[in-house]
Amino acid sequence: MPSDTPQPDFVLVRPQMGENIGAAARAMWNFGLDRMRLVVPRDGWPNSSAVAMASGAGRVLDEARLMGDVAEAVADCHYVMATTARARGLTKPVLSPERAMQVAAERIAAGEKVAVLFGPERAGLENEDVSKANAIINVPVNPAFPSLNLAQCVLLTGYEWRRAQGGITPERVDMARADWAEQIEVEKLAEHYETRLEDAGFFFPEHKAQGMRTNLRNMWSRMPLTRADVQMLHGVLRQMVRWKERGD
Amino acid sequence: MPSDTPQPDFVLVRPQMGENIGAAARAMWNFGLDRMRLVVPRDGWPNSSAVAMASGAGRVLDEARLMGDVAEAVADCHYVMATTARARGLTKPVLSPERAMQVAAERIAAGEKVAVLFGPERAGLENEDVSKANAIINVPVNPAFPSLNLAQCVLLTGYEWRRAQGGITPERVDMARADWAEQIEVEKLAEHYETRLEDAGFFFPEHKAQGMRTNLRNMWSRMPLTRADVQMLHGVLRQMVRWKERGD
Repeated sequence: MPSDTPQPDFVLVRPQMGENIGAAARAMWNFGLDRMRLVVPRDGWPNSSAVAMASGAGRVLDEARLMGDVAEAVADCHYVMATTARARGLTKPVLSPERAMQVAAERIAAGEKVAVLFGPERAGLENEDVSKANAIINVPVNPAFPSLNLAQCVLLTGYEWRRAQGGITPERVDMARADWAEQIEVEKLAEHYETRLEDAGFFFPEHKAQGMRTNLRNMWSRMPLTRADVQMLHGVLRQMVRWKERGD
Repeated sequence: MPSDTPQPDFVLVRPQMGENIGAAARAMWNFGLDRMRLVVPRDGWPNSSAVAMASGAGRVLDEARLMGDVAEAVADCHYVMATTARARGLTKPVLSPERAMQVAAERIAAGEKVAVLFGPERAGLENEDVSKANAIINVPVNPAFPSLNLAQCVLLTGYEWRRAQGGITPERVDMARADWAEQIEVEKLAEHYETRLEDAGFFFPEHKAQGMRTNLRNMWSRMPLTRADVQMLHGVLRQMVRWKERGD
């Protein structure tokens, strides 16, 4: 079992080298973090190179949860942040690592589950991955040399997590009692809209369809949706379909 | 020549592996630091493994100054800080990386030269090295797993240097670039949905209709909508109506 200490889950998305997974585990455990999720590591799992590199932080790997895709990896989370060097045109709040871990600490203290996504070594996260996040974490590196590797990005985020543990008040300012939707609920909402809009011929013309889908998903994940909002938005769509089917 | 940008000098004391010197150079240059001093690197200097690892940060190595001992390395400095995991009974101020780089920034702004000492990979700095420093920098790691390597320690210190420059706002809402919808546009969106959902028979039963309308309006007004979001949401609704009217 991972520790009971409240903390964010760090999600390594399609990591390539086992050594880097091990180095990320070490970086996490340096700052007391031991909840890792792995989305389809390239070389399979378990991975002996990861274990060799992790050495004293092997427990992080022992407890790592293997996931089939990013959606599954964040399904039970209320708030998701994506580390990326470039915002790439997606409209989302961009947080410094410091601010991001303050937000994470506040939300976790309020009982939410928080996940942080880290992309594969070379390419980083795809836009489609980032579109599933509520906010972006951007490390303020030298623009002439932005070359943080996976474990370094994990390290800086973990360091800020640890720093955020000092003097954080548990209550959140806005809507502390709101019943926020979990990520799986937002995902299902996005799917519901995507499916019905597909039927309705919304994603047209063909060469724009993928971009339109990404924009729509990005919008849902960026919205501060409560459970009630999600239910209402399902209801809106269902009613439109019923209306169509009535044909009145 | 190293850059003119005021900055501390990072002093690697008796580093062992060339790869780690290269990784430290990369870590420095990520945060715009390019003044390295090397105290008797174990495998001599220059070192091809260091160069290979540094890749894009090779200029940091090209300009690195080779020193015969720690005393020589800090001879021209006004203020010296030593990174170490343990204070080991030396009576000296112990600073967090954040505080240390604030102090460094203040002193450098006042015209002083500041150096930061980093110890060799395994053993860290000797007491004799630490005794030459004015203060100790201690990274707040997990006491059960204090395993930062050389480049990671350089990375965190460089990161705090960059943060101390003040250019980094805790939350950069990239939404300066976002084209937010005006209130009138959100209002028209709410009306559009309300009208169409009225036609579709959404507000039912009658005694709940007013509450449902209010909830829906409240949701739209609470969402951080851009102009593009508003247009997309109009498009979603229009397409559902077209679908209904096609009756396919």
